[in-house]
Amino acid sequence: MDTLDATQAAPQRRSRGARPQRGHSGRALGVPYIVRNIPTYDILGEENLLKIEKVAERILSEVGIEFRDDPVALDHWKKAGANVDGVLVRFEPGMLNEIVSSAPSQFTQHARNPAHNVEIGGKNVVFSPAYGSPFVMDLDKGRRYGTLEDFRNFIKLAQSSPWLHHSGGTICEPVDIPVNKRHLDMVYSHVKYSDRAFMGSITAEERAEDSIDMARIVFGKDFVDRNCVILGNVNVNSPLVWDGTMTKSLRAYARANQAAVIVPFILGGAMGPVTNAGAIAQSFAETLAGCALTQLERKGAPVIFGNFLSSMSLRSGSPTFGTPEPAIGSMVIGQLARRLKLPLRCAGNFSNSKLPDAQAMQEGVMSMLSAVHCGANFILHSAGFVDGLLAMSYEKFVMDTDFCGALHSYLAGVVVDDNTLAMDAFLQVGPGSHFLGCDHTMRNYQTAFWDSALSDNEPFEKWSEEGGSTDMATRANRLWKKTLAEYEAPPLDVAIDEALLDYISRRKTSMADAWY
Amino acid sequence: MDTLDATQAAPQRRSRGARPQRGHSGRALGVPYIVRNIPTYDILGEENLLKIEKVAERILSEVGIEFRDDPVALDHWKKAGANVDGVLVRFEPGMLNEIVSSAPSQFTQHARNPAHNVEIGGKNVVFSPAYGSPFVMDLDKGRRYGTLEDFRNFIKLAQSSPWLHHSGGTICEPVDIPVNKRHLDMVYSHVKYSDRAFMGSITAEERAEDSIDMARIVFGKDFVDRNCVILGNVNVNSPLVWDGTMTKSLRAYARANQAAVIVPFILGGAMGPVTNAGAIAQSFAETLAGCALTQLERKGAPVIFGNFLSSMSLRSGSPTFGTPEPAIGSMVIGQLARRLKLPLRCAGNFSNSKLPDAQAMQEGVMSMLSAVHCGANFILHSAGFVDGLLAMSYEKFVMDTDFCGALHSYLAGVVVDDNTLAMDAFLQVGPGSHFLGCDHTMRNYQTAFWDSALSDNEPFEKWSEEGGSTDMATRANRLWKKTLAEYEAPPLDVAIDEALLDYISRRKTSMADAWY
Repeated sequence: MDTLDATQAAPQRRSRGARPQRGHSGRALGVPYIVRNIPTYDILGEENLLKIEKVAERILSEVGIEFRDDPVALDHWKKAGANVDGVLVRFEPGMLNEIVSSAPSQFTQHARNPAHNVEIGGKNVVFSPAYGSPFVMDLDKGRRYGTLEDFRNFIKLAQSSPWLHHSGGTICEPVDIPVNKRHLDMVYSHVKYSDRAFMGSITAEERAEDSIDMARIVFGKDFVDRNCVILGNVNVNSPLVWDGTMTKSLRAYARANQAAVIVPFILGGAMGPVTNAGAIAQSFAETLAGCALTQLERKGAPVIFGNFLSSMSLRSGSPTFGTPEPAIGSMVIGQLARRLKLPLRCAGNFSNSKLPDAQAMQEGVMSMLSAVHCGANFILHSAGFVDGLLAMSYEKFVMDTDFCGALHSYLAGVVVDDNTLAMDAFLQVGPGSHFLGCDHTMRNYQTAFWDSALSDNEPFEKWSEEGGSTDMATRANRLWKKTLAEYEAPPLDVAIDEALLDYISRRKTSMADAWY
Repeated sequence: MDTLDATQAAPQRRSRGARPQRGHSGRALGVPYIVRNIPTYDILGEENLLKIEKVAERILSEVGIEFRDDPVALDHWKKAGANVDGVLVRFEPGMLNEIVSSAPSQFTQHARNPAHNVEIGGKNVVFSPAYGSPFVMDLDKGRRYGTLEDFRNFIKLAQSSPWLHHSGGTICEPVDIPVNKRHLDMVYSHVKYSDRAFMGSITAEERAEDSIDMARIVFGKDFVDRNCVILGNVNVNSPLVWDGTMTKSLRAYARANQAAVIVPFILGGAMGPVTNAGAIAQSFAETLAGCALTQLERKGAPVIFGNFLSSMSLRSGSPTFGTPEPAIGSMVIGQLARRLKLPLRCAGNFSNSKLPDAQAMQEGVMSMLSAVHCGANFILHSAGFVDGLLAMSYEKFVMDTDFCGALHSYLAGVVVDDNTLAMDAFLQVGPGSHFLGCDHTMRNYQTAFWDSALSDNEPFEKWSEEGGSTDMATRANRLWKKTLAEYEAPPLDVAIDEALLDYISRRKTSMADAWY
């Protein structure tokens, strides 16, 4: 393997260094992560950013945040000088900013295949599958509860895509496995069926620690203590409550020098104000407190500043996803996170559609573009998300990974150099001719345009007569089946495999099954 | 009617001044055009912009542009000091920039209902239907050639949408009408079935003049000489050729003080270089020359700097639409047009899909967002475009207008003021409660979130049991039929109507039918 630097010159210089993968379209493609070549889209000026930060400060100092069922967290806050009143904690302005300054602005998450290590922070963009759906769906069998088999299938689809960079975490809930044991099977599946970086459990402190222990088996104890190899995605119980389950998991990851992703999920009008500016201020306050707690647990531990804005249907009160207000709000979150110098998780490919249809991609694209525009470094929910994250769609998963491919070209921006400016071509071709066979075209056409594996670009007649008049969902249905059929597991050291299975076996026999 | 200023405070302050319309969702909404409250997305720095401008200068001075079959245009160039060699015209660096500086950076296009006047240029954004398809399609009857009935239907759908601002031009080709006469029926239909601003013909100089003459009947001769009331969209024959048909139409519009939209259509690798930077430089040169020619015909005439970048399928050689490279390239076009201080038409809602499916909206949204991000002022092709502009889809038309609605909220940005920051709500609600019934929510919820007429946001069970498990295309099919059934024509002065019909009758009897 070459050095990371060599693999990262620009997204469109594909496959240098890192092991090239065979893309859906048959081209050898793939980078371990994207280094963006376009700026972030900053929509607010300094004055307005300061106003939002000021309100966040007032929320933190005047209203405060409750930290429930975690005396250790309260001790941390007391020692740090916060005002602790029962479970309510208030923070002097500036205090949390000072505490989080010890967190790294960028860090490496190691994969068991070093060619798939990802850099999180800075100009880097990492795409990861969606996370947390109880249901799965496909065009053949409709919607049903997810199982471990589905979970493994999505890992295999992710691993097979050159356009994702990360194996994700709870891609779907494997509801056929007891709640208190499924994290063992999930972490094992990530290691077994993927060689990319992954996430562990956060649903209980001991499950977080199991996840990290399994990572220690894969990477070695000392290595894990010095390097990030696993992420834990912890949620605020908005508004302004951190539950002990989450803070204990958060602290478990930080204690092990692993990265917690700190994510409020704010449905505007329910868990936060119905107006964007207020929801952003609240989210900022909640995330800042969570990030600071990681540093009190272990100074210098990596942490990701996370966010998930959402909106509400005025007619039904249902949450809505992929709508314009959260998309535009994400750009502001990005600006605020960069002022803290913390890696960002924000937005993703969100949709409320129940099908892999026009709504799914309309909402998904608007939302996913906001993620890359806002400067998010780790984009959870990059693929598969439908029905307000209640279901993972097999078809949408491959549509979304295909769109992630488009974003590799998009984030490469417009390269301006003597070759791309093509003055030689103009001098050769001149007015009224064409560029089809000119030297410049022959030199550049193979890398000029992104090639979708799912979009139909044939003439209408060919599409209808030879192509069977398919829609994208039908083509996606074929593609995920073909991809699963062709999947090959990456090699895994037998000793590690056996040690993991032994660990799982011991842990499973130590507990009775629990289904809640 | 209030003044335009009063109607334009911000897109989300809907309906002040301009006559409010009943939106699809039943809410009274609609502004005559959008005043953007977010900045443009500028992706290139000064150094790279200068490099592109420099190559454009070299194209213009070293390679030149052919102006075919239009001796008047060549005369204009000679008088302006260009180097004219047969039909090949070369331009000294800076010469064209100097000439276009007489064009207005912003102008009003008047509608026959003054409440629908649009401001083109500056921070204003105008959405117009797609333009130029020979075919139409819907889910019931599939694809067929467009007719005058289809043409009128699309005008009615556009007029019924609160999210479009303009009636457009050749929304589809009415192929049941002779080629040399259909412009008369098209212009009449825009006036009869819509009271918004519209576009005229450019397929022959006399058809351009017919279109303008009909506008004179509607608005009065003197008014037309002093104000823009009709647009003509003229295409460069890329690479680097202006055909006489186009330049004569361009000059006809300019001569009448009406706005030509100057648009190269560059399919990278065919009509221009396969690399974005070169295609942008070429496009810039071609458009600049066209814009300058309008000023030589009539100094101060309004003109719109246009652009249409496209890409190519490497497998089939087919043009592709809604792909990442043209989307990102549009941002650069926007930066260049603003340096010229000219109103911009760029990008739109493009797709190559043959159906109103996931592909259609994936491509459409990526492309349409690039249009609003790049700062386009007049967005032709905002609705209906499928199959690489070979067909107008009834279903996609209403999907796209619905998405235009989302863009009204998106372009309103994040408003930061005491109300939206919601400090009062945080003080009232506190940790662990909810915002559903708090004063701030009650005060703001009705205008907080965009409400799609087509997205399904119901819980899965309700969607499947009560909603019939519809996809967005099916809902769109119902919506366009309902909209057409409920359409009411805006009032039209009887004398104007009769004068138009008389004009059409005289013109039609003066010519034999021509079908090519």
